[in-house]
Amino acid sequence: MTATVIDGKAFAAGLRDQIAAHVARLKQDHDVTPGLAVILVGDDPASDVYVSHKHKATVAVGMESFEYRLPADTTEAALFELIDKLNADPAVHGILCQFPVPDHLDERRTVARIDPGKDVDGLSVTNAGLLSTGGPALVSCTPLGCLMLLRDQIGDMTGKNAVVIGRSNLFGKPMAQLLLQANCTVTIAHSRTQNIEALCRGADILVAAVGRAEMVQGDWVKPGAVVIDVGITRVAHPEKEGKTKLLGDVHFQSAADVAGAITPVPGGVGPMTIACLLANTVTACCRAHGLDAPEGLTA
Amino acid sequence: MTATVIDGKAFAAGLRDQIAAHVARLKQDHDVTPGLAVILVGDDPASDVYVSHKHKATVAVGMESFEYRLPADTTEAALFELIDKLNADPAVHGILCQFPVPDHLDERRTVARIDPGKDVDGLSVTNAGLLSTGGPALVSCTPLGCLMLLRDQIGDMTGKNAVVIGRSNLFGKPMAQLLLQANCTVTIAHSRTQNIEALCRGADILVAAVGRAEMVQGDWVKPGAVVIDVGITRVAHPEKEGKTKLLGDVHFQSAADVAGAITPVPGGVGPMTIACLLANTVTACCRAHGLDAPEGLTA
Ligand SMILES: NC(=O)c1ccc[n+]([C@@H]2O[C@H](COP(=O)([O-])OP(=O)(O)OC[C@H]3O[C@@H](n4cnc5c(N)ncnc54)[C@H](OP(=O)(O)O)[C@@H]3O)[C@@H](O)[C@H]2O)c1
Ligand SMILES: NC(=O)c1ccc[n+]([C@@H]2O[C@H](COP(=O)([O-])OP(=O)(O)OC[C@H]3O[C@@H](n4cnc5c(N)ncnc54)[C@H](OP(=O)(O)O)[C@@H]3O)[C@@H](O)[C@H]2O)c1
Repeated sequence: MTATVIDGKAFAAGLRDQIAAHVARLKQDHDVTPGLAVILVGDDPASDVYVSHKHKATVAVGMESFEYRLPADTTEAALFELIDKLNADPAVHGILCQFPVPDHLDERRTVARIDPGKDVDGLSVTNAGLLSTGGPALVSCTPLGCLMLLRDQIGDMTGKNAVVIGRSNLFGKPMAQLLLQANCTVTIAHSRTQNIEALCRGADILVAAVGRAEMVQGDWVKPGAVVIDVGITRVAHPEKEGKTKLLGDVHFQSAADVAGAITPVPGGVGPMTIACLLANTVTACCRAHGLDAPEGLTA
Repeated sequence: MTATVIDGKAFAAGLRDQIAAHVARLKQDHDVTPGLAVILVGDDPASDVYVSHKHKATVAVGMESFEYRLPADTTEAALFELIDKLNADPAVHGILCQFPVPDHLDERRTVARIDPGKDVDGLSVTNAGLLSTGGPALVSCTPLGCLMLLRDQIGDMTGKNAVVIGRSNLFGKPMAQLLLQANCTVTIAHSRTQNIEALCRGADILVAAVGRAEMVQGDWVKPGAVVIDVGITRVAHPEKEGKTKLLGDVHFQSAADVAGAITPVPGGVGPMTIACLLANTVTACCRAHGLDAPEGLTA
């Protein structure tokens, strides 16, 4: 193996420390505490776990955490009433609704109801438009986390060839925008792409966000490339009966023999997402108070 | 020369005929006439010519044209008052403010004031966000026109490699989004791109929007590729003293020997822009009345 293994867990821990320092400074200098409100509708067990993680992480950096657990049969009107209240609440700087929501609710309409300045998941049309036009967006957390890892690994990315596999609104498209903003030459690949192996072999930066376990093989990787593996697929554990394990979109062993640096799964991109949610909340709080967003937390 | 020369002037004329038919049908079936309001602040002679062209083209397809010529010292408050009035006017389905505006006015703020549903130039943050997230955007006119030419030339673009040179908010970025939506594998190149010749040689669809006369040479073009030349540079005429001529970003002679099809400058992309402005106004009108936008006018 030649590649540096990028330790996303350690990086995310460092980022959370930085965030905690910013939060302390905001309190001391401006008497402001960033606040994050998380709404959970229904009782999906996985969502429940995520919401609890977010709560703990929020409190751990010294921010205010507001949790709203609504019954599964909550009407859109009731959900929107809560969102409107949070939009108007000066103690709340970030709002997110944990998805999926029950079928009678609509994700797009729900996101659209959140004040774009508080949309710390960066999912609204306004934030997508701000990102693509170079305005002060709140950026979707996972691509923002990948950008931070890349910046840390590479420094200036100007002129690098970046290939992003996947074009979702959640990840692929904002990732491509961030890499373009960082002056990479950016290619977006997807399920209809031809000769994807050859395309990937031209990439100095290869980001895979597909959801197909170990699709990207070592011989798809340019020697020395930085490989960011966003995919998460849970599979039966090959040795431990009844257990599962997580696989990325990249075949780690073969890719790590060629790449210059690579994120593992788990422990690579995954831990960055919640850390970036906290970063976005600090950014939103600073903007709400007319303060410069602290360096290192934004794109 | 091997390439088909794409006749944008003829295509735009056909599109305007189609639009005139839609306008007649809207009047007859729904008693609705699409209306376009154009605001010109100041007396820049070039802008004056553009505004007059738009007025004539609007009237020629049977739509209502509203022209507002404001003095150069118009305040932002007065401009916004007019925009607010037009936003509220049900006879106005499209609004555009001719740029550049005088220095004391701000283009971004002006665009932001226009109702996104009437922003027929497709320049607002909301329309950029809708385009990138797959919503019902009004799309910037020149990239929309290029898409129409490509669709006419190629049909289904699924799996084609498309390279867009240029990443402006006005053209390059929306063009890339449209090609991605059409299932191309899309690469965005710009001034920091390395080895741009080799990159272009891999393109089945090559779109150049830079503003550097004849930058793209024949040996940058893949045999059989479709080349769309968006650039416009006015230079001194090589033979006629005191006269000027227009050059594109592509060296036409050498590229036409290799390409499968190519747009000339002038007479290629240029005539599509105003036609697409009219198309967007019809689309905006249909949406405002809860009618399906007619096929062929949108992305
Ligand atoms: N916190 C985290 O770590 C985190 C966050 C977000 C996502 N993820 C993971 O990242 C992966 C992608 O997430 P997502 O939300 O972006 O997924 P998604 O919405 O399902 O998008 C998947 C993308 O992959 C493309 N694709 C599918 N098959 C392909 C193939 N054979 N070759 C090339 N491209 C192919 C699809 O192309 P088409 O558009 O043509 O269908 C689509 O654009 C998932 O495994 C997800 O769990 C992890
Ligand atoms: N109706 C029409 O026909 C129509 C409409 C729109 C535009 N146009 C024409 O299209 C051209 C582009 O317009 P625009 O508004 O998009 O211009 P723009 O905002 O100036 O953008 C030009 C783009 O070209 C890139 N670029 C500059 N030098 C380059 C180089 N040496 N190699 C590769 N890329 C380079 C720039 O890269 P960076 O981002 O790195 O600086 C930038 O992204 C102009 O000639 C304009 O007149 C025509």
